[in-house]
Amino acid sequence: MTPVATTSKGTATRELIVERAFGIARRNGLEGLSIGELATAVGMSKSGVFAHFGSREDLQLSVLEWTAQRFTETVVRPALVQPRGLPRLRAIISGWFDWVLASEEGCVILAAAGEYDGRPGPMRDQIVGWLSQWDAQLTKAVTHCIESGELAADTDPELMAFELAALVDGMHNTRLHDPARAEALARRSFERLIRSYSP
Amino acid sequence: MTPVATTSKGTATRELIVERAFGIARRNGLEGLSIGELATAVGMSKSGVFAHFGSREDLQLSVLEWTAQRFTETVVRPALVQPRGLPRLRAIISGWFDWVLASEEGCVILAAAGEYDGRPGPMRDQIVGWLSQWDAQLTKAVTHCIESGELAADTDPELMAFELAALVDGMHNTRLHDPARAEALARRSFERLIRSYSP
Repeated sequence: MTPVATTSKGTATRELIVERAFGIARRNGLEGLSIGELATAVGMSKSGVFAHFGSREDLQLSVLEWTAQRFTETVVRPALVQPRGLPRLRAIISGWFDWVLASEEGCVILAAAGEYDGRPGPMRDQIVGWLSQWDAQLTKAVTHCIESGELAADTDPELMAFELAALVDGMHNTRLHDPARAEALARRSFERLIRSYSP
Repeated sequence: MTPVATTSKGTATRELIVERAFGIARRNGLEGLSIGELATAVGMSKSGVFAHFGSREDLQLSVLEWTAQRFTETVVRPALVQPRGLPRLRAIISGWFDWVLASEEGCVILAAAGEYDGRPGPMRDQIVGWLSQWDAQLTKAVTHCIESGELAADTDPELMAFELAALVDGMHNTRLHDPARAEALARRSFERLIRSYSP
């Protein structure tokens, strides 16, 4: 076996572990990620799992990064195919709604935001960094709509980005106590929000 | 010592434990509630703590119930002093914002919603029950504003209740990556929302 083959096999195993860990984190949160449960899920020993990750935190960080990459591929990339302005903003929000709805158990990133807000450390730093970056991307998407004249010139893009994210957060929480209506309420609110900023 | 004294002493100790547990749950979430850490915080042994609660879940349920009672006393009761309609709705939302902002680490109930949405059981049931009840109260407060003519007659109270809760959820999450602006963004969004439903 060449060193290259060893490395790519190692990478594939690492990815498999992260993917299974994502499945567990969806249900139990990243803090609820048990190495024992994960080891059983991938058919390895605990020490076998740890051979691929220096620590439990290293694994949690990898799951978070993997989730963020998946978000980019699932939600952001398809939206970037749409023309700048309202079509792209609509595609972003619609894709984001679908992302949250795709898992009955909720979004790993939103759950992690709740789990780590009181716990300083690398996990919190990574979540804060990702949320800041995403907020900037949303704000830019709103700015494009103002530039194209599709939203009113006096729209505050940062306020609207806050309101868009709030709708997704609201849908995420409403899903819990009113799963049958959460999506419809969020989509209707989105249309009201767009109308409220119409030129 | 009379049995009554014993009971009230037991109740006082139980309350002290729940209050300290609330402090830990604020930081670490209800799933991150360690009995060892709690025992140290109250100056008891682990078995001393368990003597007051049948199980860790019993303790977690008690913390959730205690938090909900505190929410009622801090947010709901003062708002009920205000006249029905917009003054009361404003008091509810303002109190709710303050409640979320009062703890840097976030709201135990909102965090619990994220922790338990993928875990069926008594904790999830209690959270869902509380969220449903609160949604009904919010919807009623909006309905009063429509009846008083302070909000437009065609306002959908359930949609607006969703949007109000979403603003609070959004502020809760934005606090994490943009603590300096989260409150101002949420309060401005609230004013925009009220205006959008003006008669």
